Amino acid sequence: MPSVFPEDSVGLVSPQVLHFKEPLPLACGRHLADYELVYETYGTLNAERSNAVLICHALSGHHHAAGYHSVDDRKPGWWDSCIGPGKPIDTRKFFVVSLNNLGGCNGSTGPGSRNPATGRAYGADFPVLTVEDWVHSQARLADALGIRQWAAVIGGSLGGMQALQWSISYPERIRHCLVIASAPKLSAQNIAFNEVARQAILTDPEFHGGHFQEKGAIPRRGLMLARMVGHITYLSDDGMGEKFGRELKTDQLNYDFHSVEFQVESYLRYQGEEFSGRFDANTYLLMTKALDYFDPAAAHDGDLVQTLAPARADFCVISFSTDWRFSPARSREIVDALVEAKKNVCYLEIESAHGHDAFLIPSPRYIQGFSRYMNRIAV
Amino acid sequence: MPSVFPEDSVGLVSPQVLHFKEPLPLACGRHLADYELVYETYGTLNAERSNAVLICHALSGHHHAAGYHSVDDRKPGWWDSCIGPGKPIDTRKFFVVSLNNLGGCNGSTGPGSRNPATGRAYGADFPVLTVEDWVHSQARLADALGIRQWAAVIGGSLGGMQALQWSISYPERIRHCLVIASAPKLSAQNIAFNEVARQAILTDPEFHGGHFQEKGAIPRRGLMLARMVGHITYLSDDGMGEKFGRELKTDQLNYDFHSVEFQVESYLRYQGEEFSGRFDANTYLLMTKALDYFDPAAAHDGDLVQTLAPARADFCVISFSTDWRFSPARSREIVDALVEAKKNVCYLEIESAHGHDAFLIPSPRYIQGFSRYMNRIAV
Repeated sequence: MPSVFPEDSVGLVSPQVLHFKEPLPLACGRHLADYELVYETYGTLNAERSNAVLICHALSGHHHAAGYHSVDDRKPGWWDSCIGPGKPIDTRKFFVVSLNNLGGCNGSTGPGSRNPATGRAYGADFPVLTVEDWVHSQARLADALGIRQWAAVIGGSLGGMQALQWSISYPERIRHCLVIASAPKLSAQNIAFNEVARQAILTDPEFHGGHFQEKGAIPRRGLMLARMVGHITYLSDDGMGEKFGRELKTDQLNYDFHSVEFQVESYLRYQGEEFSGRFDANTYLLMTKALDYFDPAAAHDGDLVQTLAPARADFCVISFSTDWRFSPARSREIVDALVEAKKNVCYLEIESAHGHDAFLIPSPRYIQGFSRYMNRIAV
Repeated sequence: MPSVFPEDSVGLVSPQVLHFKEPLPLACGRHLADYELVYETYGTLNAERSNAVLICHALSGHHHAAGYHSVDDRKPGWWDSCIGPGKPIDTRKFFVVSLNNLGGCNGSTGPGSRNPATGRAYGADFPVLTVEDWVHSQARLADALGIRQWAAVIGGSLGGMQALQWSISYPERIRHCLVIASAPKLSAQNIAFNEVARQAILTDPEFHGGHFQEKGAIPRRGLMLARMVGHITYLSDDGMGEKFGRELKTDQLNYDFHSVEFQVESYLRYQGEEFSGRFDANTYLLMTKALDYFDPAAAHDGDLVQTLAPARADFCVISFSTDWRFSPARSREIVDALVEAKKNVCYLEIESAHGHDAFLIPSPRYIQGFSRYMNRIAV
């Protein structure tokens, strides 16, 4: 418990909620008649409203990106390493907006929310969303906050896909686009891992076809397995080896199926169980589907150069050497297309042992490169 | 249905069974009082009994490695690409023995067999086995067949670990050791994937603590998920991309959680479902544990050179460029230790897009290198 928050922290923050009554049409053909978005802001919007930065979150993220909700919080927001005074996203310069995406389970309207049509939780009836849908909902949030143009839209992983989509969907409303540890679309292997996670949830008897909430049930096993698989893909083989090796949990082997023999098993089980107690299974399905569906070039016969042609933003693309979920090669696809499309692009490939998770970890070269790019942005 | 078998096939083959009454002590401290091993042989044992080759199978393998069980068989044995007249393991020269390992579910004594102590299926009461236990049981099979020394012991993946263990446990009984697409021990990531597979099975309500057979149940969901995860690790990212890309199953997206959108999802679900109908869940757990536990150097403080010092065999180590389950780097660990231990070792690193599965696929350079090594063996 920090009695005084660290100097480079945004300190105590509170989520806010905005209610939207204009129906939001969705890629699936359905629409959300009305919805709420929960968000946080850090820093101060300047008089010209030219210093606003949007943070887009990844699969299991939410609006609480930086600072503390109470003096008792043991941990700050999920990207506190990069947001705050003196950090890459410097809150002395920028006004930072961070929301929980639609379909989430942290306050924004999602499968766990009350369906006005039935009076019960949406559950499986919540529409499937796409990255484009999120970007449209984020544009409405910008409207509501009086932000006509973002100084930057920034995201890692699935968040990077939203940043990229912003540059395509709203070229006039984004000056800088930062795409970190991301990809222009999923590979077959990426989709395959998502499919395993979905099958784990869908086949859990406690899932009840997505209406578990009405039944007072939670598909914990499915969520646990989904998270365990996910975690393997977030870490690098070497990173996992360095962290856990083949360290035994106890001094000797147990020779049974139930005991935890190796530290890595203990870690994965803990991560899985902890996650299954706090995350919504329908939201997890929805997030993996948004990942699978993301393929902005599909509308241009797979031509990413043509897809990015309308963009007017400057770009910063960052990848990490041992990220095998979205490897540097995937970031280079984006960079190559941007160069070909004659956009301004800065590319940082960071050496890191931390795999995909590296985008959350403040390694020196990452923080330095990220900071320098952000410092250059005129507001 | 081949009305006549291909010329390079061993043709029609039949499994045989041997019953062993001498108790087999196991690494876990328990023993098997008596047990059966099912095996097949191809080719003819020469008068000197010097041309016998042992094939060790991997996680889901069995004794039926080559040829056909009937003229109606649509597929030959699992390693038919490498075993037969004119193939790397040439049955005109070698007498090939291929068994189903103890703990298996294809005829050898395993969790599905009758436990003499209870009269019911062993289920969860079947002892956990190690690679060393298998090698000891294989040595007894060799005794029963009158084979004092193998011309070669050969295996891919978990099979390669058995071959390596043979060279350590019975240095006088193996002249050539072929370790293909294998590793000297699992990495933390390898163990992590196994743990996900195990948790999928263990938490399936139909598993019934391993006694599903008595309950007339089958933990199909757990087995399906385990196999899906496994399959992702058998293929390379690129190979999966080439095979499936982001090809849609139907012309348009369905925007729901249940439909199969991408071909890769369809493939994985099919593989998972097919497997869950034919494999035993307890055997799957047992195989993954044998993999996790394999670490021959542990007895020598992790020193693989010292571990391999007693070996008298010549070695052939083969790896495949895109195998990320047991990457070429893992094979090089074995090769480096063998060189350091002053053993004769030949190392082939094969370019292949097929990932770990490459050891089952007859690519030209693999077949050529494998054949040349086998041709050199004096019998």
